[in-house]
Amino acid sequence: MTKRERIYKIIEKAEDGDTPSAVFDWFIIILICLNIAAVICSSFDNVNNRYNRLFVYFEYFSVLIFTIEYLLRIWTAPYKFTLSPKWPSFLSYVRFIFSFMGILDLCAILPFYLPFVIIDLRILRILRLVRLLRVFKLTRYNKSFDLIGRVFKNEKDKLFMTFFIVGIMLLLAASVMYAVENVVQPDEFPNILATLWWAVVTLTTVGYGDVYPVTVLGKLLSGIISILGIILIALPSGIISSGFIKEYERKKEKRKRRRKNVRLVGEIKRGK
Amino acid sequence: MTKRERIYKIIEKAEDGDTPSAVFDWFIIILICLNIAAVICSSFDNVNNRYNRLFVYFEYFSVLIFTIEYLLRIWTAPYKFTLSPKWPSFLSYVRFIFSFMGILDLCAILPFYLPFVIIDLRILRILRLVRLLRVFKLTRYNKSFDLIGRVFKNEKDKLFMTFFIVGIMLLLAASVMYAVENVVQPDEFPNILATLWWAVVTLTTVGYGDVYPVTVLGKLLSGIISILGIILIALPSGIISSGFIKEYERKKEKRKRRRKNVRLVGEIKRGK
Amino acid sequence: MTKRERIYKIIEKAEDGDTPSAVFDWFIIILICLNIAAVICSSFDNVNNRYNRLFVYFEYFSVLIFTIEYLLRIWTAPYKFTLSPKWPSFLSYVRFIFSFMGILDLCAILPFYLPFVIIDLRILRILRLVRLLRVFKLTRYNKSFDLIGRVFKNEKDKLFMTFFIVGIMLLLAASVMYAVENVVQPDEFPNILATLWWAVVTLTTVGYGDVYPVTVLGKLLSGIISILGIILIALPSGIISSGFIKEYERKKEKRKRRRKNVRLVGEIKRGK
Amino acid sequence: MTKRERIYKIIEKAEDGDTPSAVFDWFIIILICLNIAAVICSSFDNVNNRYNRLFVYFEYFSVLIFTIEYLLRIWTAPYKFTLSPKWPSFLSYVRFIFSFMGILDLCAILPFYLPFVIIDLRILRILRLVRLLRVFKLTRYNKSFDLIGRVFKNEKDKLFMTFFIVGIMLLLAASVMYAVENVVQPDEFPNILATLWWAVVTLTTVGYGDVYPVTVLGKLLSGIISILGIILIALPSGIISSGFIKEYERKKEKRKRRRKNVRLVGEIKRGK
Repeated sequence: MTKRERIYKIIEKAEDGDTPSAVFDWFIIILICLNIAAVICSSFDNVNNRYNRLFVYFEYFSVLIFTIEYLLRIWTAPYKFTLSPKWPSFLSYVRFIFSFMGILDLCAILPFYLPFVIIDLRILRILRLVRLLRVFKLTRYNKSFDLIGRVFKNEKDKLFMTFFIVGIMLLLAASVMYAVENVVQPDEFPNILATLWWAVVTLTTVGYGDVYPVTVLGKLLSGIISILGIILIALPSGIISSGFIKEYERKKEKRKRRRKNVRLVGEIKRGK
Repeated sequence: MTKRERIYKIIEKAEDGDTPSAVFDWFIIILICLNIAAVICSSFDNVNNRYNRLFVYFEYFSVLIFTIEYLLRIWTAPYKFTLSPKWPSFLSYVRFIFSFMGILDLCAILPFYLPFVIIDLRILRILRLVRLLRVFKLTRYNKSFDLIGRVFKNEKDKLFMTFFIVGIMLLLAASVMYAVENVVQPDEFPNILATLWWAVVTLTTVGYGDVYPVTVLGKLLSGIISILGIILIALPSGIISSGFIKEYERKKEKRKRRRKNVRLVGEIKRGK
Repeated sequence: MTKRERIYKIIEKAEDGDTPSAVFDWFIIILICLNIAAVICSSFDNVNNRYNRLFVYFEYFSVLIFTIEYLLRIWTAPYKFTLSPKWPSFLSYVRFIFSFMGILDLCAILPFYLPFVIIDLRILRILRLVRLLRVFKLTRYNKSFDLIGRVFKNEKDKLFMTFFIVGIMLLLAASVMYAVENVVQPDEFPNILATLWWAVVTLTTVGYGDVYPVTVLGKLLSGIISILGIILIALPSGIISSGFIKEYERKKEKRKRRRKNVRLVGEIKRGK
Repeated sequence: MTKRERIYKIIEKAEDGDTPSAVFDWFIIILICLNIAAVICSSFDNVNNRYNRLFVYFEYFSVLIFTIEYLLRIWTAPYKFTLSPKWPSFLSYVRFIFSFMGILDLCAILPFYLPFVIIDLRILRILRLVRLLRVFKLTRYNKSFDLIGRVFKNEKDKLFMTFFIVGIMLLLAASVMYAVENVVQPDEFPNILATLWWAVVTLTTVGYGDVYPVTVLGKLLSGIISILGIILIALPSGIISSGFIKEYERKKEKRKRRRKNVRLVGEIKRGK
């Protein structure tokens, strides 16, 4: 095993008994958790004022580690994405950089190197939270995570369609509501974009209560929207539900086919 | 191919490589989106005052295009709804005009030609939003859209029944609540119709918080209604869920039967 | 056909072409709807003051009709509940009187004859609303109504269990919340029973916003309760969902078995 | 039957006709319910002041009974957890003490013996409520309770994963929201931990209305979170739904296999 392959083994999920790899995994998990804790703590004004320097040093340290890890992952990409020899080998690197996990890793360090970046640094630091997903791939929840991902992937067209229908309903509801309530409550429903806020809050059944209709027509409309909202909550629920059942049946069928093949092979052998 | 058939091909979903048809499709999609943007923008008072004339001209232009498109669709209806020769050919036109999509298209232009119409023009302009559904039929989400539509169609009796039960529960809850809370909060629960507003907001679990019971009996009742509300949210969810699974099984069975037929045909041929 | 059987046919669901029966069905449907309208209208103070006498007369008339209908239904019970000859015939009457629909019908008229009854007459009049369920049994939604009823019946143990778990969670949440928030908000959380109101409003995700925790511990608890609330909404949804699918599979299997039987009978005949 | 076995039979679920056992079961059920009633009643200040002594005596009595019951259950553990002879017999006791029900029973009495315990006694008394779960195992709802438990157990990985994703989303939403709204509403969104309260209330669609965004960016974010909240409600619903269906199919298959085995045994016998 070359040095490069050994490093690949270490930064990937630890195999049983591979202590250095397990240590590395846990080190990264703890570092990410500390990062999240740092973001939360530094949002308390008094804590931030007192330990500001500590947070800055910790940030330098984290970015350093994550950068080294990122570079190592690029370097060992050929072990992860093995390609047929007819493709040029640099494609492995490209594939890692543009993979979901690769982009995730880059997002966790890039903002630090772009001092002129506009977005708040705290937000980007919290984005490291998403890196936890990578960590989770290491664990025994791996299979559940993959299954949920697969269900969403299989049903993504239907879920997208649902969101599209939701979007149309929101726009329609906001437009009609604006026309109905704007005269009575010009401050709460000043224009269609602002009325969209009411539409979202109602359709998702959150109902903060900061904006609500007061006219009879507005209340009637709001009632219809809320009841349609129940259907809209039911739609993704039904889609995901059937998605899980499909996955279950697919797995069952695969197992059945495998068992049948084993039996067939056995019969052929005995026939010999 | 006659000129009429060519025009039919253009206004229908573009086939691969049919550039004029694809251009037409995108032109209509963009025009609809611009219409929606215009409705939203013109709801801002300051924008509307400044660019009022622009919005009027754009409205003239849009209605002109949509009218031409509507007339072309009527003209090419015989290609869409091919009938057996024994029926008079004008039935194709009638069928398009009274189809779901035909009515949708008419709704998007009719109000313009009815200056004495009462409803707010802005609402009717936003109705063009619904035309997006036609646009969506052009895309690769076509199948998901059809599937969702089919599930709702298959389960429509059960969903209707659910809404009927919801309706009865709303009326019952509002009546009892009115009798209980009217004495203490005559302003919030002035009559049964007004109390229906509370019932809808509670049963759909929106809960704005503008009206809520204050008496012990009222709170008890409200609690029961909310818990029954969970069941009511579960009912359409279960119906739609089973609807999707049925569709999936139907598709699977159809595929199995087709495969079986192919095998049978093969055996018959070999038998020969 | 005896006169009694003819009357039974009339008050039951109309068969195709049986005009008197259809007229009777529609007369009852309209009368029930008018009753509901009367209850709603008489809840408006000004309407009630002006047309009070009209409402009273209409009440007399409705109760008269419903009483006659109820007595006719008792009289024709033997046609509805045909019993084996070994049972005494009066059991048919008993069975109707204690059937779900029989009790429903009695509830719609009984309060009128009990002038000393405590409950508000308006509430009991609105109970006639529930009679609509009988009406619905007449229609083509009959099957959907029965299917939903059957699913609830099959899954009633699980649904009951869900409500029991919900009840325990509500009590637990209210008790802990009372201990946590009572010190800070003695008016909003005065005792455990009052805190139950908060628990129900939170667990069902209604969230009126009249009572909510302000302490950190209370908010933490409330967050946990809300997230568990999602699971509780998911539980009946899953139960009902699987209930519908079971019903669908049962129907499919029954159809398959029937088809198989037909084939077997055919083979046996041909074998002869 | 030894005395110990007889006592085991009594404290376990009563068999038909075993009156002493049934009496014991009902005695415990009623004692638990009275305990809950006592907790609720003693939360009313005026009731607590007047009957304080009564509540204390009842507490002594309840703890005495529950302690005796707990000791008896330990004593009879070898009948519940029968072990193969090669294991030392004291393992039965250990197994009971660390079983779910054993810990539950201990929790119901332990706090009484720890006078220096910090937590409010009322909370711990209400914990006896959870003992109702044991009671429920006695009843005919036993099967539903077990089924729901099994579904949660089978799907626990997926449900845990869902909660993990919810957790990440909550942290992300709170962090971004804090950065957006903190400037405008420093009192409502003082730090990320406090903003988590808003995130939970929104994502679970409770929406009390005590904290809500006022900036355009904040409202946009809140809208996205609410719509994602619908998906998150759909996820456990879909998981549990498929869990129930799997259980149903497993049961069906088991029945089928058993029937097949019966037939095979019959054929073998006839073959003989």
